[in-house]
Amino acid sequence: MQELTIEEQQKFMRAALKEAGKAGAIGEVPIGAVIVHDGEIIGRGFNLREHAQDAIMHAEIMAIQEANRRLKSWRLEDCQMFVTLEPCPMCAGAIINSRIPQLYFGARDPKAGVVGSLYNLLTDERFNHQVEVHERILAKEAGEILQQFFRKIRAQQKARKKAAKAQQTKDA
Amino acid sequence: MQELTIEEQQKFMRAALKEAGKAGAIGEVPIGAVIVHDGEIIGRGFNLREHAQDAIMHAEIMAIQEANRRLKSWRLEDCQMFVTLEPCPMCAGAIINSRIPQLYFGARDPKAGVVGSLYNLLTDERFNHQVEVHERILAKEAGEILQQFFRKIRAQQKARKKAAKAQQTKDA
Repeated sequence: MQELTIEEQQKFMRAALKEAGKAGAIGEVPIGAVIVHDGEIIGRGFNLREHAQDAIMHAEIMAIQEANRRLKSWRLEDCQMFVTLEPCPMCAGAIINSRIPQLYFGARDPKAGVVGSLYNLLTDERFNHQVEVHERILAKEAGEILQQFFRKIRAQQKARKKAAKAQQTKDA
Repeated sequence: MQELTIEEQQKFMRAALKEAGKAGAIGEVPIGAVIVHDGEIIGRGFNLREHAQDAIMHAEIMAIQEANRRLKSWRLEDCQMFVTLEPCPMCAGAIINSRIPQLYFGARDPKAGVVGSLYNLLTDERFNHQVEVHERILAKEAGEILQQFFRKIRAQQKARKKAAKAQQTKDA
């Protein structure tokens, strides 16, 4: 399998960041993913958990399901996944189950990441598939999009609390 | 949360085995799952990977997505999952992500199970949710449905090889 150049890696991670932006724009935690086959994006996904009220709809899952439909196969051999954040157990498991050979991710997730942070599931040779992992692709941008989102959420919560307190004072 | 009686546990595992049978009947590896809420089944699923050519469509995922739709919530608090086989990383991760508090499973999966066999993901306190696990519920039945399936597959493969060899001898 051909190695991607640094320029290609950054191009596809930018596409994943664009997906993350779509999630952030509708108030979802901004995480995005794309799947690449022969240099072409064949699956895109962004986190839709809150809008869909569906626990499964993480960026990686949506991208894998679109790629499965495009290739008419559950096997995503010869594909690369690009995702802005280190995958959680569900998504790392989905990468194993779909036989994706290469993963490129942006920022680490110390709380739930299992591709280096809490576990190394993708290189465990007891499973029937192992994944070549590349991390810190546009890590600064991938981290910042999340930090900005949570900063905004905290500011909104603070403003809501302040407004509620002002209302209480007025009512008293 | 109320503990289920042995009779209730077996009743719901029988419902999961029925789902597994639906998979086996169409040539899929027979694994089935149900999700229970207030003593009622609100989600059912069976393995559909080959028919759908979709790597995500494991029994547990299908059951979680149906339960999410029924409760109009990604959070499956106060629910129990029953599944015939020990979950893989993807499905164990989905159980964490959907906040299911109790899991009952049938047979262990020494090759890919992460709820006792290769890992203990569901009781790892570093994740933001832990699951109470009960195993070996109707384990004999849960194991047998898989063994019968793979025995049948091997017999079919053997018959095909024999037929191909007979054809070669005839052609020679």
